[in-house]
Amino acid sequence: MAKEITARSEDYSKWYNDLILKAGLADYSAVKGCMVIKPYGFAIWELMRDQLDKMFKETGHLNAYFPLFVPKRLFEAEEKNAEGFAKECAVVTHYRLKTDPDKPGKLMVDPEAKLEEELIVRPTSEAIIWNTYRDWIHSYRDLPLLINQWANVVRWEMRTRLFLRTAEFLWQEGHTAHATATEAIEETVKMLNVYSDFVEGWMALPVVKGVKTPGERFAGADDTYTIEALMQDGKALQSGTSHFLGQNFAKAFEVKFLNKENTQEYVWATSWGVSTRLMGALIMAHSDDEGLVLPPKLAPHQVVLVPVPFVNDELLNVMKDLEAELKQEGIRVKADSDETKRPGFKFAEYEMLGVPVRIAIGMRDLEKGMLEVARRDTKEKNLVPREGIASYVKALLEEIQSNLFTRAKSFQQNNITIVNNWDEFKDVIENKGGFAYAHYDGTQETEDKIKELTQATARCIPLDGEKESGVCILTGKPSAQRVLFAKAY
Amino acid sequence: MAKEITARSEDYSKWYNDLILKAGLADYSAVKGCMVIKPYGFAIWELMRDQLDKMFKETGHLNAYFPLFVPKRLFEAEEKNAEGFAKECAVVTHYRLKTDPDKPGKLMVDPEAKLEEELIVRPTSEAIIWNTYRDWIHSYRDLPLLINQWANVVRWEMRTRLFLRTAEFLWQEGHTAHATATEAIEETVKMLNVYSDFVEGWMALPVVKGVKTPGERFAGADDTYTIEALMQDGKALQSGTSHFLGQNFAKAFEVKFLNKENTQEYVWATSWGVSTRLMGALIMAHSDDEGLVLPPKLAPHQVVLVPVPFVNDELLNVMKDLEAELKQEGIRVKADSDETKRPGFKFAEYEMLGVPVRIAIGMRDLEKGMLEVARRDTKEKNLVPREGIASYVKALLEEIQSNLFTRAKSFQQNNITIVNNWDEFKDVIENKGGFAYAHYDGTQETEDKIKELTQATARCIPLDGEKESGVCILTGKPSAQRVLFAKAY
Repeated sequence: MAKEITARSEDYSKWYNDLILKAGLADYSAVKGCMVIKPYGFAIWELMRDQLDKMFKETGHLNAYFPLFVPKRLFEAEEKNAEGFAKECAVVTHYRLKTDPDKPGKLMVDPEAKLEEELIVRPTSEAIIWNTYRDWIHSYRDLPLLINQWANVVRWEMRTRLFLRTAEFLWQEGHTAHATATEAIEETVKMLNVYSDFVEGWMALPVVKGVKTPGERFAGADDTYTIEALMQDGKALQSGTSHFLGQNFAKAFEVKFLNKENTQEYVWATSWGVSTRLMGALIMAHSDDEGLVLPPKLAPHQVVLVPVPFVNDELLNVMKDLEAELKQEGIRVKADSDETKRPGFKFAEYEMLGVPVRIAIGMRDLEKGMLEVARRDTKEKNLVPREGIASYVKALLEEIQSNLFTRAKSFQQNNITIVNNWDEFKDVIENKGGFAYAHYDGTQETEDKIKELTQATARCIPLDGEKESGVCILTGKPSAQRVLFAKAY
Repeated sequence: MAKEITARSEDYSKWYNDLILKAGLADYSAVKGCMVIKPYGFAIWELMRDQLDKMFKETGHLNAYFPLFVPKRLFEAEEKNAEGFAKECAVVTHYRLKTDPDKPGKLMVDPEAKLEEELIVRPTSEAIIWNTYRDWIHSYRDLPLLINQWANVVRWEMRTRLFLRTAEFLWQEGHTAHATATEAIEETVKMLNVYSDFVEGWMALPVVKGVKTPGERFAGADDTYTIEALMQDGKALQSGTSHFLGQNFAKAFEVKFLNKENTQEYVWATSWGVSTRLMGALIMAHSDDEGLVLPPKLAPHQVVLVPVPFVNDELLNVMKDLEAELKQEGIRVKADSDETKRPGFKFAEYEMLGVPVRIAIGMRDLEKGMLEVARRDTKEKNLVPREGIASYVKALLEEIQSNLFTRAKSFQQNNITIVNNWDEFKDVIENKGGFAYAHYDGTQETEDKIKELTQATARCIPLDGEKESGVCILTGKPSAQRVLFAKAY
């Protein structure tokens, strides 16, 4: 723990990896591209998951669970979707191992246990779910059907990064069915707003809400809505997507309903998801060269209590009282009575772990009725009266939560640059970083060319953007509106 | 919903399936042997999972997440474990699909994307976890390591039954590492007790705690502890197991630690798990021919409010007040204001769903300041004063919880039969059902023979059983203690 991590200015990417390993958030595994989420990382994920789950339930969604495997013939039914994921599918072909006759004690795949039809490990569950919905939906009375599942999915990736891009990841996927296109689009936007409320309100990370250009759409969707966040290195990170699927899956799986006018119609669909990728966004959002900086709402320990300069019975008693007082206020508190480690070591450790508030309990301060309170975000230290400490800390946690958001918001605002020609565009993408807000002619060809020349991709057409017309920065052709471009994770 | 389900007396197995489908707990899927857990079933599972998770955390365990896949060379490292699961493994051999040149629009496995080493979809995670623990454990200071994960696992089964035996199922698996055998055995027993506290205290289902005979042990364990419950048809259901793994996995994966005496030692291990199989136990434990009967602690809706004989504004207002009052008491309540369904239909529906308490709100009763309260377990109905209804209902829910346990406990007690010879044994197994508590000579041969002759298996050696010696019911050879036998799920 005491060891340092690479500075951001030196190597941002290495800083990110060092931080994850040193703070015990995740670890590499023996399976190519798959990670182990360690207890501290998982505790953060649990806080994120529980809050999202609450928000999904408050908006009327129910959880369910569908199979891990998708039979090939179902997988290929919605062709665009299948095509989009075919190149990254893990495929189960056999269902048994047997003793290897040539290698004692070793096993081999039993060639006689070959499946008649291969099973795809789900990269996403539209196919298996819509195949099921056919049995569940018969009439308009069965609609809307509002279902979510928390699950693991697998997308075979060649270049992986802890949390940001792993072959297996954890996520939630909402899959809803509606009687009308309007209702389905409303749902798509509603869930985009749930995501942005969560990312901004809990992760303290501002996002731009927008619509993807056709080339960046989810395979099988009519429209993809996205929230895009900005990392400290000026790269964008797609943090959640919500898809209006039209009737594509209903048609592929023959899911019809009897409407109020007594005629059969195809059902309208949405799907929406966020994943453990959000952990990557959270880690990068606020952290510094000393380690993790966590927003209080997602910190497994919001406050840590450390006796200084050493542990004794009197300090232990004060610590126990303090712990109870803070817990009483609903604060997640850790009391560290470990006598084998010095305060300085512990301070560095809790900085690495991103604990928002540290309270040092010392005899001399106590004699004056005071405690030393340090906040992780600004590294300020203050002597604070012991009396009323719980309400002080409660307010401080709120202040830290809001300070992190304000800081990140001002960074985001300073890094959305309006550009009007190719030179300005290139300069922003190559030097300043962040989003370049530019006109382009709306063609796939131009998007591809921009990517080729600068590595920047169209992140989204912001929902609150004005419909101001202009000319394409690359081709000079007319453009109906500006689009946000950036290099992205 | 209004349709009936098969009576238990007619066909117990069909009753079980009908109930699951009619109550909307689960559904068959397009993937052989895999099920869909429907929203109502999943809501029950969430209540179970959340309570178990709380109990694991209270006993010092942390959650983490390990990869879905196990590379073959790791899978085969602990030979007994590998041998035990080899015949039921789903194997990933390829990582890509491609367009089938012979069938337009169809996909095929890309033969060029064959994995160098096959990946096993985890049937259990000892191998991948102990391979990771090697990097996490160095000294006695790293011990004990107390970790749990909630995950899906796959065991390829030929004969499957909803919840009881499915190719994919959801479970939790605890994997702990200790410095001494004593400590590991203590942990094994502690978690067995957590399981029995949960199954008895929350599912209202009495269990026998015991140790498995060697033939019934988990593959790779030195000892397997189990809780065995009894279903209404007299069959036993293994409801949770806790394994003392000795140093088997530490040796297979070279996991050593430096002890206080500064020497390297192999680590001692445990693992323990319960799964969605518990849903099967819960469904069968208390239900009847009208549908599900749920213990209040695990009922998604503990109380349902139904206006009778029809919905009007005044009743809706009373219902809204009642709903708020009950929620205030921490009761999970559903208010049914649906005007399109008659009360009789709703009553049958909520009986099918196993809602513990139903309150009918009618004008005539209200004029007398009364409400009609019906309990699902005994089907009693009572007129109860509107005043103080919340505390009445709270007490009633506790009474139902305890009544269900008492009923099941008396059933269990009446179905543990001490038998002293082969005729008695056969009579119990074939006619009475339940557990036959018998002496046997302790050999695998005799266990196999008993199974062959009667289908009964050794369920466990009860922990609280006396060490009374006797003679084997089959061979007449000496026996050190009695063992519980039963037909089992």
